[in-house]
Amino acid sequence: MGMIDPEADIEISGYRWVPEFAQGFVRDLRPRWACEEAGIAYRERLADVAHKPDWLRQAQPWAQVPILRDGAVTVFESGATLLYLAEKSEALMPREPSARGEVISWVFAVFNTIEPPIFEHDNVNLFASEEQWAVLRRPSLTDFLHQRLAPLEARLSEQEWLTCSFTVADIAMVTALRALSGTSILAAHPALEAYIGRGEARPGFVQAMADQMAAFARHPNNQN
Amino acid sequence: MGMIDPEADIEISGYRWVPEFAQGFVRDLRPRWACEEAGIAYRERLADVAHKPDWLRQAQPWAQVPILRDGAVTVFESGATLLYLAEKSEALMPREPSARGEVISWVFAVFNTIEPPIFEHDNVNLFASEEQWAVLRRPSLTDFLHQRLAPLEARLSEQEWLTCSFTVADIAMVTALRALSGTSILAAHPALEAYIGRGEARPGFVQAMADQMAAFARHPNNQN
Repeated sequence: MGMIDPEADIEISGYRWVPEFAQGFVRDLRPRWACEEAGIAYRERLADVAHKPDWLRQAQPWAQVPILRDGAVTVFESGATLLYLAEKSEALMPREPSARGEVISWVFAVFNTIEPPIFEHDNVNLFASEEQWAVLRRPSLTDFLHQRLAPLEARLSEQEWLTCSFTVADIAMVTALRALSGTSILAAHPALEAYIGRGEARPGFVQAMADQMAAFARHPNNQN
Repeated sequence: MGMIDPEADIEISGYRWVPEFAQGFVRDLRPRWACEEAGIAYRERLADVAHKPDWLRQAQPWAQVPILRDGAVTVFESGATLLYLAEKSEALMPREPSARGEVISWVFAVFNTIEPPIFEHDNVNLFASEEQWAVLRRPSLTDFLHQRLAPLEARLSEQEWLTCSFTVADIAMVTALRALSGTSILAAHPALEAYIGRGEARPGFVQAMADQMAAFARHPNNQN
């Protein structure tokens, strides 16, 4: 029994169906997980990914999910939805100023230092994997990813979460890193594999994932 | 007369010198600019980019600037420094919840939607420009950048800043987009060129840029 409630004040948008390779990776997973951790009720609003509706185009410059609405407030970009929810619950971010500063720093580290090479990795190994440039780019990108992951591997060899307790920074980081699951890049960083495993084992993650997947199961092949 | 004050509570780290291609683009420009806009005094702490000091390695996982310190608080990642400063001044972010949510959304849009392909553009056209993969990647990356910039071009054809007033979202976006200055990509987006020009014309930008460059002038070729 998760936090989805059709009467909730907070609305989180996702897709009603996506191709199989993207299932479990659509970024509404992030605010869904945060709501589960904090016990914040939310309602779903599901968009057709093939024919994006006007409300999605109007609320988000690139017509991407997630969008979070809460009364008069509309927030887009999954990072912004995480910080918005973190302001509502100490289960997501401590209130003490130095701990808060550390969490926000790590959130931006995910979105601007860790995810950009992961986006490129997805492109090189998935979307453009047959392109000649992608084949030629792979070795140097792999080296760059190892450089970016090395300080994380060292940190998470010594501590359970990025900061003193589990926070939105971990929600962001675990969901970013799990795009590398099963790759030789991640196999070279056992502390990161274990960290992803700890995140994915949390009841809040399990519930959020089940709820994202349940929407896809209700709309197989994007049919009504 | 800018906001640098050796006695200030807030410390912003930068480099004492960088190679010419990077001068004016080091990311301490962002919190410096925010301090100028808000009238927040700060002191500089300059690191040797070729021999990064222990304090930089200890405070930042990838030993990168900027780091912002304020008493017991340490913040890294330029996005986090911008949000930290924005909490101190309405000149950087309005307090009304829906306007605040919009600003934070746009800040993340810069760091996770706009900058990642700009990083790749820098790599393809500057650092790796002679590599075969970079030459082959250029056309598809250019197409992707145009897709990412198109909604911005439309928005900034109709309004002066990303949201109702100038905010930290504009500091982030202008400093991200100016990496494309002089390229044919940006020439195809005249509203964005004009927007960058409006940002760079602000006295706060002019002062922040002068102060970053002054440090480099004091340490030519990284000599003491």
